[in-house]
Amino acid sequence: MPKIDGARLLADLKRLAGFGRYETGVHRPSYSDVDIASRHWLAEKYAEAGLSPIIDGIGNVFGRADGATRRLLVGSHSETQPRGGWLDGALGVIYGLELARAFAADPDLKGLGIETVAWADEEGHYGNMLGSRSFTGHLSEAEIDGYENREGDRLRDALARAGLAGKPRIEVDPRHYLGYLEAHIEQGDTLDSTGLRIGIVEGIVGIWNWRVVLTGQQNHAGTTQMARRKDAGVAMVRLATQIHDRFAEIAGPRTVWTIGRMLLDPNAPSVVPGRAEMQVQARDIDEAILARYRDALRELVAASDRAGPCRAAVEELSQTEPRLMDPDFEKAIEATAERYVPGGHMRMPSGAGHDAQVISHRMRAGMMFIPSLKGVSHHWSEDTKEEDIVLGAQVFADAAAAILNAG
Amino acid sequence: MPKIDGARLLADLKRLAGFGRYETGVHRPSYSDVDIASRHWLAEKYAEAGLSPIIDGIGNVFGRADGATRRLLVGSHSETQPRGGWLDGALGVIYGLELARAFAADPDLKGLGIETVAWADEEGHYGNMLGSRSFTGHLSEAEIDGYENREGDRLRDALARAGLAGKPRIEVDPRHYLGYLEAHIEQGDTLDSTGLRIGIVEGIVGIWNWRVVLTGQQNHAGTTQMARRKDAGVAMVRLATQIHDRFAEIAGPRTVWTIGRMLLDPNAPSVVPGRAEMQVQARDIDEAILARYRDALRELVAASDRAGPCRAAVEELSQTEPRLMDPDFEKAIEATAERYVPGGHMRMPSGAGHDAQVISHRMRAGMMFIPSLKGVSHHWSEDTKEEDIVLGAQVFADAAAAILNAG
Repeated sequence: MPKIDGARLLADLKRLAGFGRYETGVHRPSYSDVDIASRHWLAEKYAEAGLSPIIDGIGNVFGRADGATRRLLVGSHSETQPRGGWLDGALGVIYGLELARAFAADPDLKGLGIETVAWADEEGHYGNMLGSRSFTGHLSEAEIDGYENREGDRLRDALARAGLAGKPRIEVDPRHYLGYLEAHIEQGDTLDSTGLRIGIVEGIVGIWNWRVVLTGQQNHAGTTQMARRKDAGVAMVRLATQIHDRFAEIAGPRTVWTIGRMLLDPNAPSVVPGRAEMQVQARDIDEAILARYRDALRELVAASDRAGPCRAAVEELSQTEPRLMDPDFEKAIEATAERYVPGGHMRMPSGAGHDAQVISHRMRAGMMFIPSLKGVSHHWSEDTKEEDIVLGAQVFADAAAAILNAG
Repeated sequence: MPKIDGARLLADLKRLAGFGRYETGVHRPSYSDVDIASRHWLAEKYAEAGLSPIIDGIGNVFGRADGATRRLLVGSHSETQPRGGWLDGALGVIYGLELARAFAADPDLKGLGIETVAWADEEGHYGNMLGSRSFTGHLSEAEIDGYENREGDRLRDALARAGLAGKPRIEVDPRHYLGYLEAHIEQGDTLDSTGLRIGIVEGIVGIWNWRVVLTGQQNHAGTTQMARRKDAGVAMVRLATQIHDRFAEIAGPRTVWTIGRMLLDPNAPSVVPGRAEMQVQARDIDEAILARYRDALRELVAASDRAGPCRAAVEELSQTEPRLMDPDFEKAIEATAERYVPGGHMRMPSGAGHDAQVISHRMRAGMMFIPSLKGVSHHWSEDTKEEDIVLGAQVFADAAAAILNAG
């Protein structure tokens, strides 16, 4: 069986965190100088591990195992959130590298190839999951032309500065792989708070986003009598309260919903708000539950509109479908975890999005979580115990071997 | 009795609106070039009306009636809101000028003096009601040192640019006046929607402002299970709904309340809000009702804090006391209005603040409203029918004569 070198793994994780270090975390936005430097460093590490490195036209870094007869693609993304954590993405990338090294070192695993990947811009600095979408054929040249980051920098310009202009983009040949494996920190506190060490991801939730707009009439807060008001702020807080109550009634066991953004216009203490909007989001692994949420939201908004005095309207902003992970991959990870930490693992959905959901459209995919201390995520203070990082890599390697052996 | 010249009155109102014209309204911020130019023009008009003009160190323009034996101070403020209306403030200033002219022209009114005033910065570009506060001794030099406008321009610098640095500020000698009269557009639609022509102001509402802060825990909207959340946005919309319900139950006949400003932090669709705040405002002419609102708000916030999971706290931001107008002045205006438009007038509170509330601390004060078309206020489209402007001036002049004659 493959043997993980914990010291080497941790050293490489820390080396990668040196590209853009920020406090105890990392600031490494997509296509920044440190991001590109780290991708060249990864390519070198892939080569040292006996893989053929390629950086393609969107910035994905691959390590090809040309001599293998059966192959798993293993990795994650390597850029970070602004002032983000050192493990989000990076953990899965360095796990891939370490698995490739462990497999290459073990004569019993001859012919079983770990191909590595570090996806570009999963975090959406310019677009969402750019690298995996490019690899699976879900990213057009026209889309690339249109993307820019929050500062208005165009993706085309960023790619050119990174030396990637004109380079071909590599698209998947699904016959080349048995499937895709991705490890990640949980980003929630379910494992950390229960003392479990391994999460077996059953699927990645669908995320449905709506915008609700309330339209009333802006007025002077002193001279406008209550009976004559059309206060969009009042309409919004009443509707939001109803939404929270109804969503709680119809929730599945792991449904989450959030009203994370609210805007009053003009948002001044002495002005009756003429317009208000809020963004409503629901996440679940079960599309039927998401549809139930959509219907409930439409009903509540229509009722608010009918009741007046403000108009209420809802608009669908975006809708990603839930993606189930491969059941055989789940069983392989679960059985391995049970061997190392009996009873110390659980099945769970991923509440956050991951490249694995994109890849799962073209081949079998599986994901494994290790704990996040206190569930901190998208913040430089994000962290995980070193013993959990090393244990996770060993479970992940053994599971990969089991999957490759099973063929 | 004094005889208003409607054509002259309207011409001067339009001439004043030419200083900073914006669409059909006016943009004339305090101490801007157009504001200072308009104050010099007013001083000239006061002189033409036989008054002794003075511009004092805060920018107030006075027209002294030195030969009179009994005097009323009559006016309003002459700067405008940003891109504001042509009548807000200006109407009361030109009414003062026209009354002074009408009194001077009538030998029967000999010895009865109308002294005119155009207050500085009632609208709060640098401070609130600067001119009337200066006149009544409620504005210290230290406060003047501290004020600046939204662009960070210091009041001291603005005064210097306007040529007012070092000029003395004139403070009231209450024995000099029988009282103060101010006319204004209603800024609400009560008169306009009921077809009434004159509002007799019973008092100016007290305005009490609170900030309510909800503190929860910021978290990832995908990976944080509902049961573990401390969502400050949920706490805010529930509490806001309760506040609106309770405030409606305990309202007086003309109480108004507003939650005009709400902020979620970080206000992002995929982040559970860790902090939320809202500004709650109540206005009434009856201080006992405002105290009832304060108690109810404290009770609801404490209950929200006890219920959890978020902390809730309320802080008093500001509190102005309601100010009643002089009952004899009210009767004089009401009796005059009844003579000109029988049944076409009503008593009402002012929901907005006015210089009259400041002046009322040092002498008797009265206010009269004329209609605002559709109640539009603080917007360049604000307007009033010319016939209402002329009628209002005649009622106002006759009421002033009645007050001066009664002594």
